[in-house]
This record gives sequence, structure tokens and C-alpha cells, in this order.
Amino acid sequence: MPLFDPKNPDFRAIAADTFDRQPAMRTLGISIARLEPGEVELSMAYSPDFTQQNGFVHAGVITAGLDNACGIAAFTLMPPGSDILTVEFKTNLLAPAKGERFVFRATVLRPGRTLTVCEGRAYAEHDGIETLVATMTGTLMALSRREPPPSSDRVRAPA
Amino acid sequence: MPLFDPKNPDFRAIAADTFDRQPAMRTLGISIARLEPGEVELSMAYSPDFTQQNGFVHAGVITAGLDNACGIAAFTLMPPGSDILTVEFKTNLLAPAKGERFVFRATVLRPGRTLTVCEGRAYAEHDGIETLVATMTGTLMALSRREPPPSSDRVRAPA
Amino acid sequence: MPLFDPKNPDFRAIAADTFDRQPAMRTLGISIARLEPGEVELSMAYSPDFTQQNGFVHAGVITAGLDNACGIAAFTLMPPGSDILTVEFKTNLLAPAKGERFVFRATVLRPGRTLTVCEGRAYAEHDGIETLVATMTGTLMALSRREPPPSSDRVRAPA
Amino acid sequence: MPLFDPKNPDFRAIAADTFDRQPAMRTLGISIARLEPGEVELSMAYSPDFTQQNGFVHAGVITAGLDNACGIAAFTLMPPGSDILTVEFKTNLLAPAKGERFVFRATVLRPGRTLTVCEGRAYAEHDGIETLVATMTGTLMALSRREPPPSSDRVRAPA
Repeated sequence: MPLFDPKNPDFRAIAADTFDRQPAMRTLGISIARLEPGEVELSMAYSPDFTQQNGFVHAGVITAGLDNACGIAAFTLMPPGSDILTVEFKTNLLAPAKGERFVFRATVLRPGRTLTVCEGRAYAEHDGIETLVATMTGTLMALSRREPPPSSDRVRAPA
Repeated sequence: MPLFDPKNPDFRAIAADTFDRQPAMRTLGISIARLEPGEVELSMAYSPDFTQQNGFVHAGVITAGLDNACGIAAFTLMPPGSDILTVEFKTNLLAPAKGERFVFRATVLRPGRTLTVCEGRAYAEHDGIETLVATMTGTLMALSRREPPPSSDRVRAPA
Repeated sequence: MPLFDPKNPDFRAIAADTFDRQPAMRTLGISIARLEPGEVELSMAYSPDFTQQNGFVHAGVITAGLDNACGIAAFTLMPPGSDILTVEFKTNLLAPAKGERFVFRATVLRPGRTLTVCEGRAYAEHDGIETLVATMTGTLMALSRREPPPSSDRVRAPA
Repeated sequence: MPLFDPKNPDFRAIAADTFDRQPAMRTLGISIARLEPGEVELSMAYSPDFTQQNGFVHAGVITAGLDNACGIAAFTLMPPGSDILTVEFKTNLLAPAKGERFVFRATVLRPGRTLTVCEGRAYAEHDGIETLVATMTGTLMALSRREPPPSSDRVRAPA
């Protein structure tokens, strides 16, 4: 039983299409494994191209997967004609991202007309065992496709 | 005048070497532009390979640059024989990451024996104008190179 | 020279009034020390009533001061008739909150029609010396006074 | 069945004692409702003294409850002779903190020798219904009681 009622009956096709229009996901080798209203699972194979100095997947790449899982989970609940923007996220790194495959699961904690809060978990699969390697809490913003992205009235100069 | 006294006279060579041993930085096209005790600037050229659905650089890639800038800034102040681990970070996305070049600047806010807190700012350079696109506050942990990375006694199963 | 142009010429009176209508600030002994467009300083005397087990001021109380400094700083730039809501914040605790007096300074990093991002710093004054004890990055949301606070369509049950 | 094996057989008495030695918890009217290895529930009655301008409980007070729930949850798994310090936390505010009673539940996500990561949820009870009002992810640090709290080698002047 799904946790949420999607406002857009085509949510699955539209979310998958938005995902597919992201070259970064293709470059990083991340794909959709599961897509439900307010819940998403993404999958990524290990690649030495995205590792840090100890051979683990770089925290920024893990964050890219988590952010996208959160964004797509939020997007499934938005009305037709929405675009989506990440406002902020926080990642806690719990264990080295070491494995053959990585899974990014996100669920909506609180859907809203403007802001949606999601929670993500990244797991590494190594020798058949899944280890929790990172968590994310993130805030996503719905934007009408006709509106331009919000731009600051005036951005403060760097300190 | 530098803000901090490095504990390792070779901090510059060692920080640059640690940076260079990260395949992810090479793949993302990120390089060191400036390296001082507790202060780092990294630089990245725009690449369509790392964009999201609107052609802006993906938030995860911006985060990878900020995380690495924070990590290297913290690393310049650590004693010889240290390895470094990211504990957590939070990114606020302030404007679309649109530009020809991106700059990631980080400074140490509080150096410590075990934990160091850093602040990062990401800027997009577009038509010669620099715009603040994201901020990070992150916690980094120093690890003796002989110690294994901390592993959990027991990791809780996913909820 | 102020960093920002306030949209509300009465910003000072209205921000001070909103602050004064918060019983929590009175109970915690926090008052406004300085109020400029996009910049705020709050002040709090030490009280043993708000300490943790080592006699330092509790992190939640430091966070209350930082959150309010961020909120008031954001509020000074909002148009007349706005109410304000905190979306999220992150606090890094850098040193024990030990002192006779505490100062909370916040500045707006990016003002927006809907969302404003602020940065706060908490300092402890002890024996005439000011120490940075905590930082905050927070997101604030402007709300028209006539709108009800956003309520979730359906809140997920706790995991 | 408890999720974790406590390293200290007296964890219950010691955690309750550490909680009781916090004057801030008494002032805020927060008490322990449930205490298990790695899991804590705190309870707080509504008080008008801790509200913001709309009569809801102030975000800083909700954060104080969440931070303490996380801290005590982490503390139950630490070895005898430990003291505990909050490194950082992030709070997302999901709904107005309006109710007669508030509950703060925290669980350990990843216990560690030095760092422990916890997750907290704050609920408001209003007319017999529990609403999720805030979430926290926080990092806690174990400290031997003999060690002084980590102090910075040199703290950077405010920008």
C-alpha cells in the first residue's frame, strides 16, 4: 500500500523522464531501480573513476545519488507542470563506501505545496552484504515550469 | 599572513599528493588553484557530462568540489602521518550552478586534534561575473594512517 | 554601508515587535543588541537555569539564539505583511559555551522572495575574551500574514 | 529485542543521572519517558514561556529536546567513564509545534568508539493526535571523563 496519493497520474513516466534528462546520472552510472509515490530506489555500479584516495566512492558521488533519490521521491508527489529544485541537504557519512554496487533509497517525510522534506539512505553492497554508508535529510522545492528559478535580489559578496 | 600555523612543514606537497590520488577529482575535472594553511581554492571547468535536467551542474558535483575543498583545507593543518575522513556536511544551494567555470573555496573555522570544522563556498563564473551558488559547513576527522577507518560495532538495519 | 536594501521602511520597528512577541526570548533572557538590514546581533546573559551537565549553556539554547538571530536578519528584508517560518538549520558546536555573556550574530547570505538563507555565529564572552562557540546555516521562509502556515497533505507515520 | 548491546551494564542509571544533572532540562520541563540501549524517548508539557510569536513552541526548544534525546541515546552505548559532547546537528521543521505535550524520540543510527550518529523525531500531541513536527540528525562524541573538552589550537577571528 503506497504511503502517499500522487497528484499526477503520470508521475511514473514524468519522474523517469526528468531523471533521464540528467546527463550527470548517466555519467555516474546511476539508474532507477524502483519508483513508487513518495519512494525511490536508485542503483549505481562501482566505478574506479569516482573514488577517493582510499579506493572508496567519493562522498560527493554518494551525495549525488542521495540527492537525486530525494529529488525524484519528492517529484512523484508534485502536481503536473512542476519542476523541482534542491534547497539544501545534509549528509552524514557512516562507513566507507566500499562495494560492488550502491543503492540509494529515499522516502518523503513531509510533502508540501512549496517545500518537501525527504530522507535518504545509501547502502554499499559488498560480498552480498548491504551496509548503511550514508544518510541524507533534504529539502526540495516545487517550481511551476513557467516560473524562472528564484534568483536573489542581490547576492552578498563573499566574506 | 596565514591564519594558521601548519603542523606539517610539508603540508603543501602532502595535501596536493592526497588530492592527486583521488580519481574522482580527475574525472570531474577539479584541480587545486590555491593552497594555504587552512585555506584552499579548487577550480572546475563546466562540462555537460555533469549537469542536471536544466543544464546546470548537478548539486552532487558542486558538493563533491566543496567537500574536497573542505577536506584539503582541514588536511593542511593535520600532523604528519594523518589520513582524513569526512564526517558530515550540509550544503545550501543558493543559485543555479550555471557558468563556464566553478570555484570552490574553503577555510578552516576550527581546527582540532580529532575534528576540524570547515566552511566552503562555491561560485559560478559566467560572463566574467562570479555568483555564489552554494555553501557548505562540514566536519572532518583526522585519522592516523596506521589506524583502520572506524567501523561500527553493529549497524542498525534500515528502517 | 548596509549590504541590503530593506523592502519595508519600517523594518526596524516590525522586526523588534516580532522579536518582542516571543515569550521564549524573554524567558531565555535574549535581547536585540543591533539591527540592520540583513544583519542582527542578539545578546544573552549567562544563566545557570539553561546549562547542561558540565555547567555550559545547553546546545539547544545556543541554537535558539542563533535561530532567532537568523530569523530576524531574514525578516528585516521581507516585504510588509510577511510572517516568517524557520525551514531548517544546522548547528556546529565548536567550543564549550562557557562565559558571562553570549552574542548571536546573523547575516543574510541570500535573500529571496520565498526562501532566505542566513548564517549565524555564536560567541561566548569570558573574562573579556570572545570565543566562537557555534555556527549555524539556516533557511527561512516568508509567509503572507493572511496565509495559514503550510500543513502537510498527509504526514508519514514514524518509522 | 534491543537493537544494541550496551557496553555499560549500568547504562540506565548513568544516563538518567547525566540527564538529571542538566538544569536546562528541568527549566524546560523535559523528562525521560523511556530509556533502552540506543533508544530514548523524552517528554515535555506545553508551556507558554517557551513559545514564539504565533504561540507555537520555539524551534530552539524543540531542538533542545531532540539534541538531548540524541545525546542520551548515544550515551547509553558508551563505555563506563565516558562523557558526551554534541558535535553538530541539523533540524528540519515540518509542522507548527502546537500541542499540549511534546515527545522526542531518538535512535542510534551508527554507534562508534569516538563518534555516534543519531536520528531524532519530535512529535506534538494535540487533541490526542500525534503529529511529526521536526526531525534531527546529529553527531555525538564520546570523551573520557579525564580528558578536557577539545579546545581549538587557535580559533579564527569572525569574518
